[in-house]
Amino acid sequence: MPTPDRTSLDAIVLAARDLLEKDGLAGITMQAVAHRVGVRAPSLYKRVQSRDRLIQLVAETTLTELTERLAIATTAAQLANLLRAFGRQQPAAFQLVMTPEAGTPVADHSFRVALSAPLLRVARDLAGDELALEAARTLTAWAAGFITLELNGGFQLGGDIDRAWDFGVERIVQAITTAPAAAPSPGEMSPARAPQLAPGG
Amino acid sequence: MPTPDRTSLDAIVLAARDLLEKDGLAGITMQAVAHRVGVRAPSLYKRVQSRDRLIQLVAETTLTELTERLAIATTAAQLANLLRAFGRQQPAAFQLVMTPEAGTPVADHSFRVALSAPLLRVARDLAGDELALEAARTLTAWAAGFITLELNGGFQLGGDIDRAWDFGVERIVQAITTAPAAAPSPGEMSPARAPQLAPGG
Repeated sequence: MPTPDRTSLDAIVLAARDLLEKDGLAGITMQAVAHRVGVRAPSLYKRVQSRDRLIQLVAETTLTELTERLAIATTAAQLANLLRAFGRQQPAAFQLVMTPEAGTPVADHSFRVALSAPLLRVARDLAGDELALEAARTLTAWAAGFITLELNGGFQLGGDIDRAWDFGVERIVQAITTAPAAAPSPGEMSPARAPQLAPGG
Repeated sequence: MPTPDRTSLDAIVLAARDLLEKDGLAGITMQAVAHRVGVRAPSLYKRVQSRDRLIQLVAETTLTELTERLAIATTAAQLANLLRAFGRQQPAAFQLVMTPEAGTPVADHSFRVALSAPLLRVARDLAGDELALEAARTLTAWAAGFITLELNGGFQLGGDIDRAWDFGVERIVQAITTAPAAAPSPGEMSPARAPQLAPGG
């Protein structure tokens, strides 16, 4: 266990994240965090100037972790599933960064822009450059909304929530995929494509 | 102005809703509500037994109002737009019922089921009975996610948010619409449908 004067900022933020998942945002108090890292509250204030700043640091480390996890996604469906897995694992942190209540301290702009990168990447693959931003916003809004509703018991009518998720992933991916150009008429067909056609065209 | 002993439950809930929009959930305190309706806190407790119950009442009246507003929607696009208008008008109340933080008192099940009725109705029109629930969940998740992200500054990359909304509405409606049965081949065509075909079709 670290001695009080070696208590790192990382340990402080980790303690705050644990408290967040255990007791919600109200559980993050300077007193509780100090107790958890084994220092007195005044020592904690030397590292982090306020509770608001601490919550902001929690939001920023959460976004960094989430961005790293999403980086491995090669498809929109994978990315949505990674987002849901993260929400299930750290529901309070997920909501802190995706759907914070008004007045909650938020991460610096740069951390939120970083999270957009993997979302934009998979969206661009489906929708093209022109509509990448709109497609990313549609995917993100749907996934954030679904996961938040699921975590908070917002789906009240029973039924199979996994089925609704799979339906949503499939339909949203279709929805943001730019329709391929209409198939050329046989007269315009290039020789290279002809072999891919089924017998009878 | 009502005398203290005539202070109705409606007036109490209205005061709490005003405080919610003004100062967030933390703004709803029994003291502040009592002050607003012109009674002392002990008198307030005779009407509403706790702050948690008061927040639950706020959530329930919000859901009732939202359900009434959505009842006039005849299409999924109209419904989504009504939802967004409500979110802009009462952002804190919207978030209280759509994406409440863990630990926040929620409305009784029956109020949340009531809100599902207009959502299911427009979803059924598009997706059919078999997939109505999945389609309603896709539409609700997307709209709730988009509106919450918009209200909380979650869209960080600039661009035109109205354009993203319109793109989303159009694509989500397409996405949850069950594809019509494939067009029959000419030999199977019933005489009644033939006149709808373009010349040479």
